[in-house]
Amino acid sequence: TQQLVSKASVKAPRARPYRVSTADRSVRKGVTACSLEDLLHKVQDLLMLKDKPFSLVLEEDGTAVETEEYFQALGGNTVFMVLQKGQRWQPLSEQGTQYQL
Amino acid sequence: TQQLVSKASVKAPRARPYRVSTADRSVRKGVTACSLEDLLHKVQDLLMLKDKPFSLVLEEDGTAVETEEYFQALGGNTVFMVLQKGQRWQPLSEQGTQYQL
Repeated sequence: TQQLVSKASVKAPRARPYRVSTADRSVRKGVTACSLEDLLHKVQDLLMLKDKPFSLVLEEDGTAVETEEYFQALGGNTVFMVLQKGQRWQPLSEQGTQYQL
Repeated sequence: TQQLVSKASVKAPRARPYRVSTADRSVRKGVTACSLEDLLHKVQDLLMLKDKPFSLVLEEDGTAVETEEYFQALGGNTVFMVLQKGQRWQPLSEQGTQYQL
């Protein structure tokens, strides 16, 4: 049994939980993914972005997440933001009053 | 399986995640690197700086990062800023209005 477990963990990278926000921070959803490609596919479904180009950045500071290596180095529970064409990252404090007093 | 894992971890120095910003803070990208040299090479590709001299400073206060020892002592997720010839570090508050009111 131990061998089976070891093999499985080599073949299938463990799926970790992440959070994905829209650019205006009005929608935030939880999702699991084992790779950046997996996450991109799931985000497409979650936020109904079929055929709409988008990129992923870190919600906290807008850092572009473009490589599998960087994605894997991030921890679970990282919050991503989806930027569609024409959208750009903005700090929370500039985003109107929706989450502020 | 255990042996394979051990060997892999010995051969490859652990790559850590970092963030790299342009001098005007308009572009910020995530990247992994295991050494300062590795980071400099990757930044060259990421920001298309082939044959353009540049240096790395800390984004938060412009501290020059010039030695491997200092780089290794910094934690993961450090935010670096790329300064090309003629560019100098500026605090966020002086950088026009792009991230301010």
